[in-house]
Amino acid sequence: MPTYTAPIADQVFVLEEMLGVSRQDVPGYGDMDRDTLTAILEEAGKVASEVMAPLNAVGDTQGCVLENGVVRTPDGFKAAFDAVREGGWTALDCDPEYGGQGLPYVVATAVGEQFSAANMAFNMYQGLTHGAYSAIHAHGTDDQKATYLPKMVTCEWTGTMNLTEPHCGTDLGLMRTKAVPQEDGTYKVTGQKIFISAGDHDMSENVIHLVLAKIPGGPDGIKGVSLFIVPKFIVEDGQPGARNSVSVGKLEEKMGIHGNATCVMNYDEATGYLLGEEHKGMRAMFTMMNEARVGVGLQGYAQAEVAYQNALIYAKDRLQGRDVTGAKNPDGPADPLIVHPDIRRNLLDQKSFVEGARAFAYWGASLIDRAHRCEDKAADGLVSLMTPVVKGFLTDKGFEMATQAQQVYGGHGYIEEWGMSQFARDARIAMIYEGANGVQALDLVGRKLAQDGGKHVMAFFAQVTDFIKETKGRSEAFDKDFREPLKAASKDLQAAGMYFMQNGMKNPNAALSGSYDFMHLMGHVCLGLMWAKMAVTAEDKLAEGTGDADFYKTKIATGRYYMARQLPMTTTHLRRIESGADPVMSLDAEQF
Amino acid sequence: MPTYTAPIADQVFVLEEMLGVSRQDVPGYGDMDRDTLTAILEEAGKVASEVMAPLNAVGDTQGCVLENGVVRTPDGFKAAFDAVREGGWTALDCDPEYGGQGLPYVVATAVGEQFSAANMAFNMYQGLTHGAYSAIHAHGTDDQKATYLPKMVTCEWTGTMNLTEPHCGTDLGLMRTKAVPQEDGTYKVTGQKIFISAGDHDMSENVIHLVLAKIPGGPDGIKGVSLFIVPKFIVEDGQPGARNSVSVGKLEEKMGIHGNATCVMNYDEATGYLLGEEHKGMRAMFTMMNEARVGVGLQGYAQAEVAYQNALIYAKDRLQGRDVTGAKNPDGPADPLIVHPDIRRNLLDQKSFVEGARAFAYWGASLIDRAHRCEDKAADGLVSLMTPVVKGFLTDKGFEMATQAQQVYGGHGYIEEWGMSQFARDARIAMIYEGANGVQALDLVGRKLAQDGGKHVMAFFAQVTDFIKETKGRSEAFDKDFREPLKAASKDLQAAGMYFMQNGMKNPNAALSGSYDFMHLMGHVCLGLMWAKMAVTAEDKLAEGTGDADFYKTKIATGRYYMARQLPMTTTHLRRIESGADPVMSLDAEQF
Repeated sequence: MPTYTAPIADQVFVLEEMLGVSRQDVPGYGDMDRDTLTAILEEAGKVASEVMAPLNAVGDTQGCVLENGVVRTPDGFKAAFDAVREGGWTALDCDPEYGGQGLPYVVATAVGEQFSAANMAFNMYQGLTHGAYSAIHAHGTDDQKATYLPKMVTCEWTGTMNLTEPHCGTDLGLMRTKAVPQEDGTYKVTGQKIFISAGDHDMSENVIHLVLAKIPGGPDGIKGVSLFIVPKFIVEDGQPGARNSVSVGKLEEKMGIHGNATCVMNYDEATGYLLGEEHKGMRAMFTMMNEARVGVGLQGYAQAEVAYQNALIYAKDRLQGRDVTGAKNPDGPADPLIVHPDIRRNLLDQKSFVEGARAFAYWGASLIDRAHRCEDKAADGLVSLMTPVVKGFLTDKGFEMATQAQQVYGGHGYIEEWGMSQFARDARIAMIYEGANGVQALDLVGRKLAQDGGKHVMAFFAQVTDFIKETKGRSEAFDKDFREPLKAASKDLQAAGMYFMQNGMKNPNAALSGSYDFMHLMGHVCLGLMWAKMAVTAEDKLAEGTGDADFYKTKIATGRYYMARQLPMTTTHLRRIESGADPVMSLDAEQF
Repeated sequence: MPTYTAPIADQVFVLEEMLGVSRQDVPGYGDMDRDTLTAILEEAGKVASEVMAPLNAVGDTQGCVLENGVVRTPDGFKAAFDAVREGGWTALDCDPEYGGQGLPYVVATAVGEQFSAANMAFNMYQGLTHGAYSAIHAHGTDDQKATYLPKMVTCEWTGTMNLTEPHCGTDLGLMRTKAVPQEDGTYKVTGQKIFISAGDHDMSENVIHLVLAKIPGGPDGIKGVSLFIVPKFIVEDGQPGARNSVSVGKLEEKMGIHGNATCVMNYDEATGYLLGEEHKGMRAMFTMMNEARVGVGLQGYAQAEVAYQNALIYAKDRLQGRDVTGAKNPDGPADPLIVHPDIRRNLLDQKSFVEGARAFAYWGASLIDRAHRCEDKAADGLVSLMTPVVKGFLTDKGFEMATQAQQVYGGHGYIEEWGMSQFARDARIAMIYEGANGVQALDLVGRKLAQDGGKHVMAFFAQVTDFIKETKGRSEAFDKDFREPLKAASKDLQAAGMYFMQNGMKNPNAALSGSYDFMHLMGHVCLGLMWAKMAVTAEDKLAEGTGDADFYKTKIATGRYYMARQLPMTTTHLRRIESGADPVMSLDAEQF
């Protein structure tokens, strides 16, 4: 049975030492000193390891069941959900006005990583609720906020997001769900939505659905879409009242995340309340979706983290073969797997990805805090640029790494009992939902690069270039192991951007054919930058002689691995991008 | 529900036009003219599509069940197995002396691809039998051959291979299963074997287990391992007689291939018959294992083929979004997915891999024919070199491509009902069994490169170099699109080989740290060579003006895609290899 241990030392390293959270001039950050951070993460880590992780396999094996129209969650989920709720873990970064704790988003992100690693399917119930909370918080009337938010902050009521219909996913303009205005100001919502995570369950008193629908007579396509609050039980005097006409049509059988109820939801003249403005539903939904995308990126590397932890335990424990340079366990029948270079290569791929991803995710989260708490437009622009990279790159690599972790177990990795298959199967969805990764790449290259005249991508390039300048002459080792590789990778990224500028205007397909590679190229440069920054921090700490020297040395060695063995992918991505549209577009559809 | 259609035109293109099977001077090849090949593949294709494919989802959903010590296969499996057997499909390349049809292995390989694509779990029952047949055929006494082979050729009796034990997989020297000699020349076999595919089932009269075990008093480790025939029912007068003391301890719950029974087998003083010589069991087992490894490589790309076929259907059918350069389906609500560059990129990754892999696998199979039927030592050496590449590269990429195919479906790809998850889950095992791919890489770099003084790898380099020389000045397009990229990739491969030669002697870890990358680098060069050869064939056919011009043009365009967008991976692999042992080996086990 796999286990999970919160990687607190590394989390604190990134938050406190690399990002210097408590030293940043962001409201709320000053309180987050090392001791406070450590205390929060240790408490959260206990919940993750002791409450959530033991239910991960249970959730996978039992799955959710639809009984008489109501979803029953796996054994133990409700008690665990109550414990999480009562511990205040659902309210971390929520608005104190509605019962939240007002902690920085970056801290909630670190906790979210733990919860997601421990039990992804379980943690989605609160994750979706938080997304719905954010949409109502940003776009709701005071009355709506007062009605829904306090109960959603505590997860007494949970939330969902309803976008997809059987015939439309990415292309929401094709939507058929209708919302007909009523005389009392409410709407009657009718239609079918699919793939609704946490669509129904037995762990909360009410489910607050946010539903995209079209008001008849509005503009065609995506411009005529509005967002509605459709509660499972109509709220009367602050309490769940009459049953609304929304029902679960079916539970989907999925490859993974069996512990989360993925529902077909049927709305049959259900009572809905407009959230935000008429026909501006996508704007409100994007509040939720951008947050959800960052959260999904977190899921990607969180599954890789827990898979890595277990692969490492197995690699140290399992005796098989001998070190070619001489027995390391001469008294035993064989050496542990970890002596073998290819097992190390596999483990270091995982370790160097996960730690780089963690730094990237927390950096992104700190920019979100800056955007929201300091109204920093530059930070906001950077977040908007990075969101598809966080989502697309971290989930692709997260799945790949979970699959590699499975490989360490040999045949046992394929047997469900050992739990490694579940990590890979669960991680797989993160590449798909909240916008399949191809759509993220399209968003990045088709929209985000050119946004505000290309200002944000230029700002990112400048950050990298400045860092390279600032660290010139730091040390020979840093130069060779970090600075030069980062410089080369960032040159590849800029060359790719240049290629798009020069060719994408004449032929959009020249850019779009390389969009997926660009997303990965940029992901590698981001992780390369994070690793170089972590190396600087670790070198400084070693020079100061404070802290755990072994931790810092390991950090530098792990980073060196990333720079030497992962970062060179940028060259291949660039070559693919520069091959242009022709190889991709030359076949007619019939020739495939 | 997914479908499967045998890709006969492409199979015949590779066999007849590219490899020129009927024109090769190999016994049995002369009869394999285009019409004969087409007829065989069409008949096999019907069995694949109509008998096997419809049971693929059934097998996945129902799985195998252990009832009162006997494994029950999913509904319909037995009737289908009878049909396959009665159609003679289990006997294609078997020895006519024992009831086989004596067809070339390369033809059986093409049929095997179809069967494996249509229903991997189902086809394994006969695949394992064929492996056991080969081991008995090569190492058995006349009496053993007469007793077992005729029934195994028809699959009235099926076979298994028993290597792994709970505490040892790759490191078989740790084996505990014992075989104690008896006065009558038989042995009493006692021990537990795990991961035994097709270990028991209800589709055959008898199961012939080939079991590795140690004879007490023999040499330590792997040198004291012998191979035994242990039938489920002892054969008496050519018929299954008394029940042997071998039993199924458990059926494993796996990530995929649910239709195949993966058994824990318990041997409790079971009667066994020595196959081959005492303590030379590994030699006999390798006969079986090398064949099995090539077969597993086939499974890898076969799953990618069927996944691609279905992804393509979906991409043409599903309407979502608009072509950025102008609507392609202006009268419909949206354009089909296939208009989008990133969907094409995804599909072309799959298509160009599968077709390249097919050529590579058939080329390998034709070398096996040459080795066996012409006693061609050079061919035998090349096969031995290529086996880990066929197994490791084709299964890694096969799984990756099946995962990409799943991605085309968006959310539906994650829902089991649509069948795309099964292709990925089934394909996953191919990276693990018959030697995990890391072990294949070790075999390639640690053994095969230096085998016979490096003769075989030099022969392969020479083949590539000669081809590059011969095709000089062929055409400007060929030069730019195929010859130059192949030349660059083969330079990367040779540089990697050189790095190993210069560094691997001093420090074996310098080579082993790059073994996995070398396996992939070599795989890409092999597929690049195949694509360049296919392009030559297609160009020649176009110049001749015979055949289906559209087919040849598509072939060239698909190859161009591979060369432009897949082959550049060789650069990254080389850079990783040349980073050497240090990044991989510098951490102590405790520092991970």
